[in-house]
Amino acid sequence: MKKMIGTSLLLFGVIAFGQSKEDSLQFRKISTEILNNGKGYAELKELTKTIGHRLSGSEAYEKSVQWAEQKLRDAGADKVWLQEVTIPVWVRGKESLHIKTSGGTWKNIKMLSLGNSERTGGKDVFGEIIMVKSMEEYDLLPAEKVKDKIVFFNYPFNQENVQTFISYRDAGAYRRTAASLTAKKGGKFAIIRSLSSAFDDVPHTGNMRYDENVSKIPAVTIGSTSADELESLLKAHSVTAKLNSNCGMKGEKLSHSVIGEISGKKDQSVIVVGGHLDSWDVGEGAHDDGAGIVQSIEVLRTFKKLGIQNNHTIRAVCFANEENGTKGGKQYGKTVKEKNEKHLFAIESDAGGYSPRGISLEMNDDHRNQIKSWGHLFLPYGVYNFEGKYSGSDIAPLHEMGVPTAELVPEPQRYFDIHHTAEDTFEKVNRRELLLGATVMTQLIYMIDKNW
Amino acid sequence: MKKMIGTSLLLFGVIAFGQSKEDSLQFRKISTEILNNGKGYAELKELTKTIGHRLSGSEAYEKSVQWAEQKLRDAGADKVWLQEVTIPVWVRGKESLHIKTSGGTWKNIKMLSLGNSERTGGKDVFGEIIMVKSMEEYDLLPAEKVKDKIVFFNYPFNQENVQTFISYRDAGAYRRTAASLTAKKGGKFAIIRSLSSAFDDVPHTGNMRYDENVSKIPAVTIGSTSADELESLLKAHSVTAKLNSNCGMKGEKLSHSVIGEISGKKDQSVIVVGGHLDSWDVGEGAHDDGAGIVQSIEVLRTFKKLGIQNNHTIRAVCFANEENGTKGGKQYGKTVKEKNEKHLFAIESDAGGYSPRGISLEMNDDHRNQIKSWGHLFLPYGVYNFEGKYSGSDIAPLHEMGVPTAELVPEPQRYFDIHHTAEDTFEKVNRRELLLGATVMTQLIYMIDKNW
Repeated sequence: MKKMIGTSLLLFGVIAFGQSKEDSLQFRKISTEILNNGKGYAELKELTKTIGHRLSGSEAYEKSVQWAEQKLRDAGADKVWLQEVTIPVWVRGKESLHIKTSGGTWKNIKMLSLGNSERTGGKDVFGEIIMVKSMEEYDLLPAEKVKDKIVFFNYPFNQENVQTFISYRDAGAYRRTAASLTAKKGGKFAIIRSLSSAFDDVPHTGNMRYDENVSKIPAVTIGSTSADELESLLKAHSVTAKLNSNCGMKGEKLSHSVIGEISGKKDQSVIVVGGHLDSWDVGEGAHDDGAGIVQSIEVLRTFKKLGIQNNHTIRAVCFANEENGTKGGKQYGKTVKEKNEKHLFAIESDAGGYSPRGISLEMNDDHRNQIKSWGHLFLPYGVYNFEGKYSGSDIAPLHEMGVPTAELVPEPQRYFDIHHTAEDTFEKVNRRELLLGATVMTQLIYMIDKNW
Repeated sequence: MKKMIGTSLLLFGVIAFGQSKEDSLQFRKISTEILNNGKGYAELKELTKTIGHRLSGSEAYEKSVQWAEQKLRDAGADKVWLQEVTIPVWVRGKESLHIKTSGGTWKNIKMLSLGNSERTGGKDVFGEIIMVKSMEEYDLLPAEKVKDKIVFFNYPFNQENVQTFISYRDAGAYRRTAASLTAKKGGKFAIIRSLSSAFDDVPHTGNMRYDENVSKIPAVTIGSTSADELESLLKAHSVTAKLNSNCGMKGEKLSHSVIGEISGKKDQSVIVVGGHLDSWDVGEGAHDDGAGIVQSIEVLRTFKKLGIQNNHTIRAVCFANEENGTKGGKQYGKTVKEKNEKHLFAIESDAGGYSPRGISLEMNDDHRNQIKSWGHLFLPYGVYNFEGKYSGSDIAPLHEMGVPTAELVPEPQRYFDIHHTAEDTFEKVNRRELLLGATVMTQLIYMIDKNW
């Protein structure tokens, strides 16, 4: 009996070793194909240079829908379709912010209205600036000190975190809530220091929202050096600001997410790989999230090109409206529920097209441990970190329905230098780094397709 | 007895855990100091923008010697000195490469002479180009087919290796030997495809050498797209090349490496951290190796700023002449031997100022395993790979003397896009990535200083 167990264990070991070797060879085939022949970098150049930024609701976004449809066909998808999504429309319009110290002249400050912010309505809005360095400091201010003032939330991005996403989430509260907080105490508008890891003068836009029952006053953001300069000025003098902005919500519109799939050979349950097709209305949306889009398309292309027999349906989803509403992700989840489509797994790439370092896993321990047990296969591709427990916002509705979800975790040091800015351009993306991200997602999907 | 062993083990466990916690806190102090207050990025801007490229032997190099001396003093070094090094002097001069197909006009090709190459002597040298794709193909060519020809070694950088240094070393043989190989069969000069991971037209220079008893014919390099175009032309027609170059060796010169140290509080044996101060004569030598220089200075600054009581002497060495002779490293090793200075450990940063991923260890297994046992401390800083078994060229003489040596292993995907080119500029370096490299070297030196 003992001997039999020994033999069985040995046999199991041999099979496991054989499997591992086979998988390791398949991993290498995938990386070789993508690093040599990957189309993602050239496609990202097209998307960023011929279409550019593409806020959902814009004409550029509609062009990107057509573009993605074509690229999914080119990649060899068996089926490509558009999914209707009703999206909120927000437009920026002309805008400017000026400041003046007593007796001085008006000085123009580089700025951006935050996404979803309302306008000054074509008028100049004036007021004295008061600065706070933190939420706590703001909470202590009595309403009469804020009334008719401009509140400058000068909370810096914490440079100490190696994981920059922690600092981003930390400072994110200011971007989301500054306008409502200011309105509640009677302020005229809010200025926030950009959520930026860089020490430059580039303003970073991004989503904000209004609490219910508050006056929808404008919220704008300025770059790090402008914020530092304003802080210095405020230490010496009172400073008046003048804002003129024309942004605002313009109702809703029917638009689309773009979906392509290769059919499962044994089973029609679905594995999703995705990113978001929309971007903010500045820069080119290269890292955020053109990268995730071309990587997702690359996954399909590679399965087809290598002739990998996928058991399950593999579906690339280019979600609409992640930036200012996540309506694409929500609609996708809703449709899955309505159609009762079984989903096996979903992974999102929405943290930049940098070298992969890990895969964050939002799933039960059995699934997590199984994926971790494949860690040695990923190590030669620089992927070592499976400790994260979150996944992306567009696949959150799938996760809520019980689908195991994941996110590609790339190198995070550069992302918040350029995130949501005019600087998020194709030139900031490296071909090999981008393609390695696609490689790792293809490898993971190969393993899940084979083993789940 | 059993109980006693149990208690001892428990006690040992508690001590080990306490140590680990103390070390983890010290690691965090180091990263917090450097990520918040690090000077390396500002110093790199000075070095690259006020001095620029600095081939050893040039006036710019001499300026960088003065600059490094001052920065080491500013960092708080107890002692700063220059170490005399006799270096070879190589100068580029004006140069151009043209090609012409039969009946066509001369077309200028972007090129660089390889470092240490000899000139055409102010004359135009003409010849028909023959192309080979590999060393093996060249070996098969009879001498009469090469005689009076220009040999174009069009060996591409292998995109398949995730570890780009493997591809660099692989293609490096062409750069080093093309001229001698061509000369041996009577060719007039050699053109090599640049050792580049990028698909652009940027030529990458770098070191070459002549075998003994061969004619010192010129060797030049062209970018990837020029190489591809030349390949296409050669498939259709014969192509003539015309080279005019004025580079060459100009004897020797007395120059200096720059050294600064903080004295050991208990023991004068030395821990070295270093990079090379010289660069090639194009671009700004930002990643190669301005990064290693400012990171090494940052290590000293951080020990002083945090008041860490270093048991041993910690010495930052800015080596002269790594690029075309490694005379600085050799002289340093020679001096150590002459003075019989005990060296405990040496680490070099000369693989770019990108995010650290590992530390490569060239040492015996006891030392290697001890450093690996500290791996959990480094993991929060993105450092997980201790498998490499090489270290840098400037500390090779120390390694030969039995000193355990190491190299910082940064993210390798971008380096060979810009290595030894006009594109290796300050703008390519990210502040946080650069400072994380300095952080990890400081942390490692803290551990070695404390435990060895």
